[in-house]
Amino acid sequence: MVQVAQLGKGADMSDNQQKSSNVVWHQSQVTTAMRENLNGHRGAVLWFTGLSGAGKSTLANAVEDRLYAMKARTFVIDGDNVRHGLCADLSFSDDDRVENIRRVGEVAGLFVQAGVLTLTAFISPFRADREKVRSIVGENFIEVHCDTALEVCESRDVKGLYKKARAGEIAEFTGISSPYEAPENPEIRVDTGSDDLSVCVDQVIAYLLKKSVIQHV
Amino acid sequence: MVQVAQLGKGADMSDNQQKSSNVVWHQSQVTTAMRENLNGHRGAVLWFTGLSGAGKSTLANAVEDRLYAMKARTFVIDGDNVRHGLCADLSFSDDDRVENIRRVGEVAGLFVQAGVLTLTAFISPFRADREKVRSIVGENFIEVHCDTALEVCESRDVKGLYKKARAGEIAEFTGISSPYEAPENPEIRVDTGSDDLSVCVDQVIAYLLKKSVIQHV
Repeated sequence: MVQVAQLGKGADMSDNQQKSSNVVWHQSQVTTAMRENLNGHRGAVLWFTGLSGAGKSTLANAVEDRLYAMKARTFVIDGDNVRHGLCADLSFSDDDRVENIRRVGEVAGLFVQAGVLTLTAFISPFRADREKVRSIVGENFIEVHCDTALEVCESRDVKGLYKKARAGEIAEFTGISSPYEAPENPEIRVDTGSDDLSVCVDQVIAYLLKKSVIQHV
Repeated sequence: MVQVAQLGKGADMSDNQQKSSNVVWHQSQVTTAMRENLNGHRGAVLWFTGLSGAGKSTLANAVEDRLYAMKARTFVIDGDNVRHGLCADLSFSDDDRVENIRRVGEVAGLFVQAGVLTLTAFISPFRADREKVRSIVGENFIEVHCDTALEVCESRDVKGLYKKARAGEIAEFTGISSPYEAPENPEIRVDTGSDDLSVCVDQVIAYLLKKSVIQHV
């Protein structure tokens, strides 16, 4: 498969064609469609959003576990693997939170190009930020609202963050001192407040099957 | 496979455990080793470095093409897919070039965690920047020096950048007005100045086989 790639712009851009008197190099390129064909499923982003303690990361990992059993190629992006790495230069200021989500969206977009079923777990409280990611990723963006009432999240308070937020020790804490803008039309809404984990996982998997993102194995 | 993930830090961090009076959610996690097992090869970064016009991107794509034929899971990261996305906020200043390479290194590290054979094509002229990426990625970092003499790159001048650099229209152009610090001990050195493309590809594939990153199919 020989294909001429789009020409880059700027000094740091990649080289797209090579010519010299005695060597001619043709540009070849493996496409997303070819990778998806190899994987047996489409690339997509499952964007888990919800309050702290709603179960985003746990659900994302449980869905990944199920997808792995179906031999799907998956990856979970969450705070653990970006806040200490890609986004280690960012603070928790408003601007830096926006930039954090933007970068995660861009990286998720690259993973989709790579044909990977990508699961992200971020509070991502603002609609505008999530819509920006949707515009980056395109039609393969699947918003999953982990819908748990604030009082349930607060009663769980696994990390003690709500207690600190109520004590004024954490500024701009989502649900307490900063708003959570719930998705209006998420592709999937899961009741992470009262349903069992397996019920929520089933719901996500059923959606992926219905939309032919994955196939029955 | 049930495994408790490392606890996150900070308000945007992921939720690692869920507890309430009636629902207990266990954390599961698909590991890099599990993904590599599914893929039949290890995750690694092939970091192609060299002058503009040395053939980095062309070689990276040709290697990917070969790996795809071996059913490997691959992805190429180059200027085309980061300068307009993840790094669209960065200029070509010294600081921003450092940051550009840092982010690419972090993203490459995530792809390695995902079990993907990741190929990057950036001039990345400074040893310190490349060593920083090596420290991010760890033992799975494979530096590939695309070694083509400056005069050959300049005679190719596919994008007319050398002409512009000589005319003083591009500042800090690697090889002309800014140094290229060649790798001292790259894992692979390919003679992209005179060897045929297929010879260079063979050399990279042979290295991956020898190091058991990939297996004969």
